[in-house]
This record gives sequence, C-alpha cells and structure tokens, in this order.
Amino acid sequence: MSMTLRQLADALQLEFRGDAETPISGVASLAAAGASDLCFIQQRKYLARLEASRCAAVIVSENLAASLERPLLLSAEPHYSFVRAIEVLGLAATDAAPGVDPSARVAASARIDESASIGPLCVIGDDVEIGAGTHIGAAVVIERGVRIGADCTIHSRVTLSGSAQIGDRCILHPGSVVGADGFGLVEHAEAWKKIPHLGSVRIDDDVEIGANTTVDRGALDDTVIEQGCKLDNQIQVGHNVHIGAHTAIAGCVGIAGSARIGRYCKISGGAGILGHLQVADHVTITAMSLVTRDIREPGVYSSGTPLLENRLWLRNSSRYKSLEQLAQRVDRLEKNGK
Amino acid sequence: MSMTLRQLADALQLEFRGDAETPISGVASLAAAGASDLCFIQQRKYLARLEASRCAAVIVSENLAASLERPLLLSAEPHYSFVRAIEVLGLAATDAAPGVDPSARVAASARIDESASIGPLCVIGDDVEIGAGTHIGAAVVIERGVRIGADCTIHSRVTLSGSAQIGDRCILHPGSVVGADGFGLVEHAEAWKKIPHLGSVRIDDDVEIGANTTVDRGALDDTVIEQGCKLDNQIQVGHNVHIGAHTAIAGCVGIAGSARIGRYCKISGGAGILGHLQVADHVTITAMSLVTRDIREPGVYSSGTPLLENRLWLRNSSRYKSLEQLAQRVDRLEKNGK
Amino acid sequence: MSMTLRQLADALQLEFRGDAETPISGVASLAAAGASDLCFIQQRKYLARLEASRCAAVIVSENLAASLERPLLLSAEPHYSFVRAIEVLGLAATDAAPGVDPSARVAASARIDESASIGPLCVIGDDVEIGAGTHIGAAVVIERGVRIGADCTIHSRVTLSGSAQIGDRCILHPGSVVGADGFGLVEHAEAWKKIPHLGSVRIDDDVEIGANTTVDRGALDDTVIEQGCKLDNQIQVGHNVHIGAHTAIAGCVGIAGSARIGRYCKISGGAGILGHLQVADHVTITAMSLVTRDIREPGVYSSGTPLLENRLWLRNSSRYKSLEQLAQRVDRLEKNGK
Repeated sequence: MSMTLRQLADALQLEFRGDAETPISGVASLAAAGASDLCFIQQRKYLARLEASRCAAVIVSENLAASLERPLLLSAEPHYSFVRAIEVLGLAATDAAPGVDPSARVAASARIDESASIGPLCVIGDDVEIGAGTHIGAAVVIERGVRIGADCTIHSRVTLSGSAQIGDRCILHPGSVVGADGFGLVEHAEAWKKIPHLGSVRIDDDVEIGANTTVDRGALDDTVIEQGCKLDNQIQVGHNVHIGAHTAIAGCVGIAGSARIGRYCKISGGAGILGHLQVADHVTITAMSLVTRDIREPGVYSSGTPLLENRLWLRNSSRYKSLEQLAQRVDRLEKNGK
Repeated sequence: MSMTLRQLADALQLEFRGDAETPISGVASLAAAGASDLCFIQQRKYLARLEASRCAAVIVSENLAASLERPLLLSAEPHYSFVRAIEVLGLAATDAAPGVDPSARVAASARIDESASIGPLCVIGDDVEIGAGTHIGAAVVIERGVRIGADCTIHSRVTLSGSAQIGDRCILHPGSVVGADGFGLVEHAEAWKKIPHLGSVRIDDDVEIGANTTVDRGALDDTVIEQGCKLDNQIQVGHNVHIGAHTAIAGCVGIAGSARIGRYCKISGGAGILGHLQVADHVTITAMSLVTRDIREPGVYSSGTPLLENRLWLRNSSRYKSLEQLAQRVDRLEKNGK
Repeated sequence: MSMTLRQLADALQLEFRGDAETPISGVASLAAAGASDLCFIQQRKYLARLEASRCAAVIVSENLAASLERPLLLSAEPHYSFVRAIEVLGLAATDAAPGVDPSARVAASARIDESASIGPLCVIGDDVEIGAGTHIGAAVVIERGVRIGADCTIHSRVTLSGSAQIGDRCILHPGSVVGADGFGLVEHAEAWKKIPHLGSVRIDDDVEIGANTTVDRGALDDTVIEQGCKLDNQIQVGHNVHIGAHTAIAGCVGIAGSARIGRYCKISGGAGILGHLQVADHVTITAMSLVTRDIREPGVYSSGTPLLENRLWLRNSSRYKSLEQLAQRVDRLEKNGK
C-alpha cells in the first residue's frame, strides 16, 4: 500500500513537515532505503547517515528535526511510531485465509472459531479450543484440552500440550514447546523415579514465545507467564515458574523450577535463575549472570568476570584459586603494621 | 478413580491413620487441594500450610505425624509414596489406543509391535523397530534403522535418526533430536571439511530426554546414555559422549564431544563440560559451572562468581583484571616487612 | 563398496606401503576396527592403541610411519584423508531418490528442481525455490519465498521462513529454525510493542546449521552467515547478526542482535556475544566466555573463573565480593610502608 506523507501523519496522529504529497510505500534502514521508503532516527549520531540516505521521509523527535530539510514526521517516540507506520502501511500483514487446511487432523470435539485458520498437517486433539482470528501455521501439534484465545499466531512446528491455556494476541514461534512435563524426580532405591506432571501452563494475553523455547507444565499447580511478557529464543522455563507481567527475557536464559520473577524485569541473554527464588519487580539481570539468591530490591544485578586476553585471564584466574589466602595475607600484613 | 484411605494404604503398602473410608480421588498442592485430594509433606515447615489445607489426607513421615489429626498415610519417603499414589489412582494414565494412525507414513519394512501406538502424521523409515506398548505421539520422525524398545513414550515432534537404539521405558519429550550428526570438522585448505558421522546413539532403559534436547550420534563409535539417566530440556550432548547410569542433568547443560561422565552424577542447569574430559561417579556440578579438567574424586564442584549489585560488581570485576598484580604487590609487601 | 589398498591410495592420491591388495570396505576407531576396516592416527600417543588394533590399514603421516609394519597410506593430513576415504568408499552416501513424496504439500508456485527430493509430510509454500540435487527430509516446513540452492541437505523437522536465502551445499539439521522474527521490542505506554521483522536471512554456500539451532531474520536488513561457517546445535543467532566466512561456532552459543563476527573465528561452547559488538577475524573465544566489548585484534579471549572444589570456591567467591576493598587495603599498606 502507498500513502502520502499527509495520510500517514493523519493515520499515526503525528505532525508532519515538508511536501504533504510525498509518496511512501515502504520502510527501510537508512543505508538500504529507496526513494519511497520511510526511516526513523532516535539519536543525533545518526544524522550523518540520514544525510546520505535516499529515504523519502524520516520520523524524528522535535529536537533532531531542526536541521533537517527532508520530509518528516515528528514523534516523541520515533521507533514506536515507525513500528506503527509498518502496521498502517500493511507491511507486516499475514495472508492466512480462515478455515482448516484439509490435510490437518482435527479431533471432532475440538472447537475452532470459524474465523481462525489452521495450517496444513496440523494435529489438533480432543477438546481443544481455538479463538477468533487465531492463525495456526503448518505442522503444529495441539494436544487434548489446550485452549488458545483470539488473534494469536502459532507458527509452524509448535507443540502445545499439558492442557495449556493461552490468552489473546499471543505469538509462539517455530519449534517452541509449551506444556511438556517438568524435570521432577524423586530418589528411590538408588534410582530416579519420575514425578508425573498434572499441573498446566497459563500464558496470559500479549505474550510472545521465541523459537525453540520450552515452557514446562507445573507438577501440581500451573506454570504462569503473565500478560505482556516477551520471551526470546532457546529459553527454558521450568515447572511452576511464575513470571510477572511485562517482563522481557532474552535468548538462552534458563529459569529453574518454582522461581518467581517479578513484573517489568529484564533478564539478559544466557542468564540463569535458580529454582524456588524470588526476584522483585523492575529487576535487570545482565547477560550470563547467575541468580543464586532472592532479589528483593529493584536494580541491576550481575555475576561473572570481565573478558580478557587469554594469557592475562589465565594468570588472574590462577590467582582466583587462592583469593582467600591472599586476603588472609593482607590481614596479617595489616596486623603486623600496627 | 476414587479409592478409600484404606484401599490406597493397601495398594501402597503403607500404614494409615484416621477414617479408613475417607474417599480420595485426586492429588494436589496443599493450597489448591479440595476435599477429596491427597497431599504430602516432607518438612516440618509445611505443617502450618497443611493446617490450612482442605485436603482429605496427607502422606507424612512418622516424625511429623504425631501432631496431626487429619487422615494420613505413613511413609518413610512421602514424596515417593505420593508419586506412587498418583499412579495407583490412575491420574497419570495416557489414553493412546494400540495401532497405527492412518495418516502416519510407515515403511513396509518397519516392524511395529501390535500393542504399540503410532500417532498421526508420523514418518517411520525402513527397518525401524518399535517394541510392545510403546506410544509414539504426533508428527514424530523415526529414520531408517532406529530401534525403540518396549513401553516407551515418544512425544510429538521428536526426530530419531542415525540408527539410534532406545531401550525400554524411555521417555522423549517434544522437539528432542536424537542421532543427528555431531560437530566434527577437520581443517583443510583454509576451510572446514565435514566429518561424516557413522556412529550411532545408544540409550539404555528408563532414560528421559527433555524437550528440545539434542543428543548427537558418534563419529565412529556410539554416543551412550546409560540406564536411568534423566535429562532435562535444552541440553546438548555432543558426539561420543558417555553418560553413566542414573546421572541427572538439568536444563541448558552443554556436554562437548567425547566427554565421559560417571554414574550417579548431578549436573545443574547451564553447566558446561569440555570435550574429552572424565568425570568420576557421584560428582555434583553446580549451576553454570564450567568443567575444564578431569574430575577424579566424588564431590561438589563450582566455578563462577557471586551475584552482586551491578555497581559493586563493576568495581570488583575491574579489580579482577589486575588480580595477578595485586598478588604480586602483596608478595612485595611481605618481603619488605621481613 | 570394497577397495584394495592400492585403489584407495589412487583415489585419494596418496602413497601406500604394504600389501597393495589388502581389501578395505569400512572405517572404524582403533578399538572397534575389524579386519577390513581403515583407521587413522595423528598423534604418537596412539601408536600403542594402533598396535592392538585389528584394522586392515591405517592412514598416518610420514613421521609416524617408520615403525609400522601394517599396510598404510601416507598423508600429511591423516584425518582429512580419512574423511575423504569415507566418501570414496561410499560410506556416507544417502539414498534419497529424486522426486516429491506424494504426502508433501507443495504450493503450485513453488519451483523444485526435478533432481531434488522432497520427503514425506513436508509443507512448501508459495514461490519457494529448491535447487538441483537438494534433499529435503521429512516434515520440513518451508515458507513463502524461501530459496534453497543446489546439493543442500535439509534434515527432518526444519522450519525455513522469512524469505531466507540458502546457498549451495548447505546442511541444516533437525529442529533448526531459520528466519523466525528476531527479539525486537520497543517500550510504549508501560508495555512492550513488537517490532515487525521485514528483513531476511542470507546463508551462503557450504554452511552447516546444527540441530535445534535458531537463526533469526533481520528487522529491516538481513541476518548474514557467510560461506563455510559451521554452527553446532542449540545456538541462537539474533537478528541482523553478521558472521564472517569459515567461522566455527560450538553448541549452546548465544549471539545477540547486530553483532558482527569476523572470518575464521572459533567460538567455543556456551559462549555469549553481546549485541552490536564487532569481533575481528581469527578470534578464538573460550568456552562459556562472555564477549562484552569489541575485539579488534586476533587472539584468544576468555572470561570466567576456574573450576574448584565447592568448599574452596565458596571461600574464594566470598572474597570476590570485597575484592575492591582488598585492593584498597593493599594501597594503604603500600602507602604506610613508604
């Protein structure tokens, strides 16, 4: 779809400057933009690249706009407005028509809204419910009793089991598994006895689950991911974990069983959170840190050591092995000095 | 199924106290339990929660039972007995009927026991063998020459390849991949040459493999996971790894090629084990530790640094970069003090 | 296929010693080799094992060959020659016949070379292109607009989406996902707004992608993996990452968005690379290290602490929390000593 600068400004409820009839039909990065593409910048340092860009128009904040002669849209949140422009221009639209692909295997007792679409070679079990406008991709397996709300997108090759309950407007990426048994074992007679899992998974509205991410069902009670949480790829969420609303979790994070994470947290890539811990609201964990204790105060938390050239790292690491002794030697020096 | 307290006690070979006719039909956590649910407690600190619970009966050890007026089952292993109760009450039963779903693609040369069940849209290759009572979920791919024993559960969207040999009573969770090529490369003419993988994977009886976990086939000999091992989700097991019986491995662990792990080990989440190492029996590795050398003695091993508030962490981290120099400065101070 | 020592030497263009008519039909490890198997050794320490081996012949370098009485092939690169022998002996050949399995769902607009093979229960979308000699396994989902070159192997249960472009001779292992949306979010009104992804993924020739590895599409521009890169299992490659040619990445590595990795790098297992960083050519990152800053010089880089017995680790770790203070105490001691 092509729109004029004025039309786009109206649709986004933004002020514009420059030729109102400038045609805009796409979006792009500054470097790749062509003559009908929209860009955005949020930082002064990108002004030089904008100068060199062939883009038709740019979304900027008032304070960066002064020096620009190019057609522009003024926004206090340029990146957000850019995302809205993508939507308004119809660039992110999917094309799934309602209906069930004839190759899908759908149980007679499943209730699928007639506006939903079910892709080829899906398997949909007994008593499954799928809401209005929800799109299920190819080769998705949805087991008995799972309920999916409205306007969700379940991409290809997802498994939903354990009677998982998914809210509205959720997105699940390919290969993700929601509702498999947790890792519950009890020792008996010098062997591990598996704990059957009877709990479920509850995922609230507007949650996104990345590719190949796994969310286990609870042992007795449910694993819960509250509204607006965003999970990247390759994440492991153990049984009975509870993640508060609007928390964002980057790739490769592991969260052990029964951990309770607050709202508005940011967990960076590769971090780990031990089981049965509590993490307060508004906590940020830096990349590859391990949370080994409750965190009761908002703030930023870290573990690990800085990256070093390997030869230097080996020498310092070797000293780490006797850090306790080093401290005791300093104790003695202090005592002797008195 | 509903049972009386007496019937359940008989089935579990446990002593009971209280009304023998107490009906029990479910299990639950203390907080969620209803009037016909069974619970268990293993620690004194849960007595208060038990007090507030509406559960019908509880499994406890003798030493916690004294103060309780509620119907109870006495067990030296309450959690284990609780798991047995779930089984006896039929709460964990699956409902797969024997037979091959008509939508499954099964090679003519595959030998599938008539008591096994094969789910919809499975693909089963030449010379595959599937044992009695084994249940294969939906959209599972089992390639040429794979052999699966009796009473296994292979959940949806698993791939088995590389002529993997799976024992009896194994459980494979969705998205797991057993038998893909390992990461074998040899440098030649400034590029990587792939090493074809001709070895297989041998998984012995009673092994559980978590969702999206990967176990590579060996290069020449086999990758081996011995009896009773339990692997959580998102684990990577490299080619020619050997894992001893009854070892448990938590989520997100990576084990590099040809590592040899002992029996009865416990590898916590996110840990890494370098290739070609040996780890003794009865070794515990704490979360996110990296095993960089052989471990010859049973015990608990760790690496990493404690979680700190980020500002404090930055200061200490910065000192880590010159830990060697700090130690040398202490050396000099000690020399001067003499 | 069986060959004589002489035939194999001719095919590999290597010199041989011993009985030219020695029949060779297989390859094996030294311990498992039977009387018609070929082995190789690259290090003197394996000479004793070779002595005990029943193998028919061995590939060795000139400097190890002197003491050997066994039939042998001389090679400056024994492991490489061994891999070539596997190929020449036909031991790694696959058996897919050209053609589209009747159970596959292929869009009318897809262009599939007639020498390609498409496995059972695949789903192939509009405008997909698949090149000559490429083999697609079972239950693979290839979405609209994806293009795959010649002589690729796409194993079972792979998803390709986001208009990914795959070069020639690439191998994708089961469960891998190429082209899912990246983790792009913008904060608005106290919630996360998803950034639609319009970029793609470009994977050049001779790239291998491990089982359950994920490679996200770019937000606006493309994610790029250059020629000859080898990625192991369970790796996460974020949106707009650029990986230079011939870089090898071991299992469980996470690379955050827009990182730019050089050519001929080696990233060991479990390492992490933060977003928007640059890593020079010929950089090695050791296992489970976190790259938190640009690396401008070739070399080996590390972070983390050594593995210790847990009791010792606890004491040293505890001192790490006050490393800054320890350094300040040494400062004071030095001042007082003057």
